[in-house]
Amino acid sequence: MLKEMMENVRNTRPLVHNITNYVTVNDCANILLACGGSPIMADDAGEVEEITTVCGGLNINIGTLNKRTIEAMLLAGKKANALGHPVVLDPVGAGASKLRTETAYALIKDVKFAAIRGNMSEIKTLANGSGTTKGVDADVADSVNEDNLNEAVAFAASVAKKLGTVIAITGAIDIVTDGTKTYCIRNGHSMMSSVTGTGCQLSAMTAAYVTANPTHPLEAAAAAVCVMGLAGEIAYKRLGDQDGNSSYRNYIIDAVYRMSPEQLEKGAKYEVR
Amino acid sequence: MLKEMMENVRNTRPLVHNITNYVTVNDCANILLACGGSPIMADDAGEVEEITTVCGGLNINIGTLNKRTIEAMLLAGKKANALGHPVVLDPVGAGASKLRTETAYALIKDVKFAAIRGNMSEIKTLANGSGTTKGVDADVADSVNEDNLNEAVAFAASVAKKLGTVIAITGAIDIVTDGTKTYCIRNGHSMMSSVTGTGCQLSAMTAAYVTANPTHPLEAAAAAVCVMGLAGEIAYKRLGDQDGNSSYRNYIIDAVYRMSPEQLEKGAKYEVR
Amino acid sequence: MLKEMMENVRNTRPLVHNITNYVTVNDCANILLACGGSPIMADDAGEVEEITTVCGGLNINIGTLNKRTIEAMLLAGKKANALGHPVVLDPVGAGASKLRTETAYALIKDVKFAAIRGNMSEIKTLANGSGTTKGVDADVADSVNEDNLNEAVAFAASVAKKLGTVIAITGAIDIVTDGTKTYCIRNGHSMMSSVTGTGCQLSAMTAAYVTANPTHPLEAAAAAVCVMGLAGEIAYKRLGDQDGNSSYRNYIIDAVYRMSPEQLEKGAKYEVR
Repeated sequence: MLKEMMENVRNTRPLVHNITNYVTVNDCANILLACGGSPIMADDAGEVEEITTVCGGLNINIGTLNKRTIEAMLLAGKKANALGHPVVLDPVGAGASKLRTETAYALIKDVKFAAIRGNMSEIKTLANGSGTTKGVDADVADSVNEDNLNEAVAFAASVAKKLGTVIAITGAIDIVTDGTKTYCIRNGHSMMSSVTGTGCQLSAMTAAYVTANPTHPLEAAAAAVCVMGLAGEIAYKRLGDQDGNSSYRNYIIDAVYRMSPEQLEKGAKYEVR
Repeated sequence: MLKEMMENVRNTRPLVHNITNYVTVNDCANILLACGGSPIMADDAGEVEEITTVCGGLNINIGTLNKRTIEAMLLAGKKANALGHPVVLDPVGAGASKLRTETAYALIKDVKFAAIRGNMSEIKTLANGSGTTKGVDADVADSVNEDNLNEAVAFAASVAKKLGTVIAITGAIDIVTDGTKTYCIRNGHSMMSSVTGTGCQLSAMTAAYVTANPTHPLEAAAAAVCVMGLAGEIAYKRLGDQDGNSSYRNYIIDAVYRMSPEQLEKGAKYEVR
Repeated sequence: MLKEMMENVRNTRPLVHNITNYVTVNDCANILLACGGSPIMADDAGEVEEITTVCGGLNINIGTLNKRTIEAMLLAGKKANALGHPVVLDPVGAGASKLRTETAYALIKDVKFAAIRGNMSEIKTLANGSGTTKGVDADVADSVNEDNLNEAVAFAASVAKKLGTVIAITGAIDIVTDGTKTYCIRNGHSMMSSVTGTGCQLSAMTAAYVTANPTHPLEAAAAAVCVMGLAGEIAYKRLGDQDGNSSYRNYIIDAVYRMSPEQLEKGAKYEVR
């Protein structure tokens, strides 16, 4: 199944409109190209509706939001909805400031998302304002492990049902759910957190996957999460004794570029609940 | 001739003012350094005239334009003109939205450009609004190949004459023309399109080349196009079996950094028409 | 002493709020992660006070300032001061435009900085408006060498005393002083100037160091300068015969990631005056 998801991205080359932060935007563009998609970035309210119209999907990331781009996010999101284009949300830092939390709420209220990807603190904030987001990383108290996995899955599923979207909570164990069916994914490597924007990159790639697989948003999002995690593993094995997080960043994107559907099927470590 | 163009960049170290998009801006800065130039980025209307005054040339790229930066582009462009500094335009995505198309028209109307570099769809839009730009890549219908090369050269030359500038249309075959003399360049590698911003990087480098070679804008632009294409070839040969588009990105800039004038003369594949 | 500075960063993992330019922001984020810190970028006036509150320190870099972000810089700086969080200033291009010079003055007037890092031209501008900044690099006339080092140290110390901050002037020889005690540091490699943003990266890392070592801002800033210079040396030795400035960029960040406290103690080349 994951294999088909990847093949559909490679074969249809989805054009993804990104309204995203200026920190990790270049990596988002390159990982979209690596996975087989095509990126366009545009954030002015005067053009986002037109730009999103020529694209297949939309990725909204609030990482360095400002008043000007928030307006553009809402306009683009509504337009994409009207056109039936899938929209992905990355609520970076929701919970860390009122502006982020309120923008995330406004987006959820006015835009229908195909998938929302964040860490546990961000998704908790979306759900009920109870997340303890510290900066842009998940709070330690919010980490998912084998002991609290059942509880985390139930929580994620409840959010997915409530918001009518696929929820992807990434961390040591990733949870991807549509509220009924849940993928628990154990790919990835802890060193990925030492590269800025691996989460942003995953969200951009998720947008390509849900765009290329419009009838299977859950499987598409799960496939994107597996690709990213597996790329992190492959890249980690490639590290030489002088390589650090900057080379690791390159190797992760390289691994996405080189990954075959067969490699994905074989390397993906997930269980379905 | 190409050799002298490169030597003039290396010897005069042109300072280039860039008003460019936030997606590929870091690569633009590093390729300017790689080729022997020096970058400065500044986009606030309150300072762009002063900044462009201390520079030798100006590079305007509309990749992530917004109302604030459009004003800055026009102010900087006019000031550079008044000072006799060469200005390069990269009309990223012209044709994909009214804002981009109209901004490109406003720039062409109010600013005299030494060179304009884009893909065929963007240049068609500039010429007559008939381009079929899809996102930021050229439409397949607009690709230049051996069969339609004569026609493409004639088109490029007509745009160059009409706008009184050097036109560089890059793709599988690159066309660089001032309306009278045309370089058809067959360097480069198709994998370059899997790295975001190779076009933006080339435009930034073109600004350094025309700044360092003020009396030869055509040859300067052609040299920059050859450098970029040759760097793409050298970098491709360097790829190991785990390298993908992210390492390729680094290797292209590395190749520009290491390229000697002799290597350029020997590796450049062009014909003059 | 340098060793302890580094260990405190690694052990406390300081969260640093960055209001910085969009050219080098990704490298700033990755070098913060490499050194053991954690980055968050936020520049909207509507959230910077809240964001800086959840962080340990603040890094203000005026590299691509605009009216919107200048307001945010002042708000965040004052809030950080009120909370007792260390603040670092990188006055990129001060002297190159009135907007930059006046913004730097406004910041110095309204915000108390733990450290200010710039090149000699920028620091001269801060001190008395007499710098001859050209673009974002130090003017040649402002370079520090063995012949004018005594004079440069005296100047730096006078600025540090006047502004009540640690001053770090980086170049061929780096000077870090609190006005009373001065570190003259001879690490680094000239090729570092062919990578965009090594200065910005150092400023971001300095913010992590002063945040993790609140009672020793001078030693913390000196340690950060030594780390960056030593990383430049280690990365230079690693260069293969096809590597250029782009790979060098990656290797520098990698070297920061891999550097041990012992390696720093052994490799740091400094004298105290």
